[in-house]
Amino acid sequence: MSIKIITISRQFGSGGRTIAKELAAKLGYDYYDREIIEEVAEKTGFSKDVIASKGEEAPGKSIFSYGFEAQATPGIMNGMTMNDYIWTVQRKVIKDIADSGKPCVIVGRSADYILKDYDKVLNVYICADLNFRKERIVKLYGETDKKPEKRLDEKDKKRAANHKHFTDLQWGYAPNYDICLNSSALGIDKCVQILEQIVKNG
Amino acid sequence: MSIKIITISRQFGSGGRTIAKELAAKLGYDYYDREIIEEVAEKTGFSKDVIASKGEEAPGKSIFSYGFEAQATPGIMNGMTMNDYIWTVQRKVIKDIADSGKPCVIVGRSADYILKDYDKVLNVYICADLNFRKERIVKLYGETDKKPEKRLDEKDKKRAANHKHFTDLQWGYAPNYDICLNSSALGIDKCVQILEQIVKNG
Repeated sequence: MSIKIITISRQFGSGGRTIAKELAAKLGYDYYDREIIEEVAEKTGFSKDVIASKGEEAPGKSIFSYGFEAQATPGIMNGMTMNDYIWTVQRKVIKDIADSGKPCVIVGRSADYILKDYDKVLNVYICADLNFRKERIVKLYGETDKKPEKRLDEKDKKRAANHKHFTDLQWGYAPNYDICLNSSALGIDKCVQILEQIVKNG
Repeated sequence: MSIKIITISRQFGSGGRTIAKELAAKLGYDYYDREIIEEVAEKTGFSKDVIASKGEEAPGKSIFSYGFEAQATPGIMNGMTMNDYIWTVQRKVIKDIADSGKPCVIVGRSADYILKDYDKVLNVYICADLNFRKERIVKLYGETDKKPEKRLDEKDKKRAANHKHFTDLQWGYAPNYDICLNSSALGIDKCVQILEQIVKNG
């Protein structure tokens, strides 16, 4: 298949975003990650932090911290909960990106599911061993009061819960993707290379 | 890493065995699939059919069809159930293969878990879409009274249950493997090529 869109789902700390970025650069494809957050924030009026969190990590335990979860704002949100509203706008933004016809790499946000009826899409999942991820998040994002294991566990659980809620699919279950790579076993560069070869020879 | 052992877990009908065989041939590695069944059958005295079924697909629903599941044969089986006894012998056979030091490809039988403390092992999972697998099993193994969907579902459930029982790990969950490939999306030849490149350049 001639691949035009690559979706990259990734465990927190696995280097999935780095792989996505390097792959996009090597292929000369557009890269979408924070760009989606910015567009959804602009379209909805919510802050980027809220979109970053709710666009991938709700509904999960943390949703209650916002305290206005079940509240439906009449009019703009059309009777939807905030989560559903953000999902709907995010879904539209991702479809618009795909419909533009420009080759691209999209990170996270259940883009694999959102684009399931599109052709020429390669759905990738990046995971890594616990120790690799622990070291990586501390190195990249610094120490916090929470232990790295807990930070990883919370973030992955939220992403999995969000994905399950909106797609009814298990996040990280291999048959839901075209290829899953363990970056700690294979190395980040090797993951980029494998994906690049698939697209170039595809 | 310089890979000496490749374990291939696979959904029924995904072409995982074909991929394993072609990969072994291309790399000049030994190939173990039915060979394990034969050795376990010889060591335990059970028939090859019983080993083929129980070595990967029990405990599951079908175990009751044997009717002597919980029976422990004193002496040889050392108080173990038949399932546990076969698992133990199969585990020993797989470890002996690994300990021989000869590069090899091993299909199924939770070899990924059994060899988890060994170095230079690449753990692969092969899956494929339902339609691809349905067509493939009918082509390879013929029609039966059961619908292809049911045959796939039963076999996968038994393999997953067996894996879970002995390893406490979810079969097919990407973080439990180094690489997972969807053979219907990528093509069987491409899967062989990706794995060959990983081993050769590794």
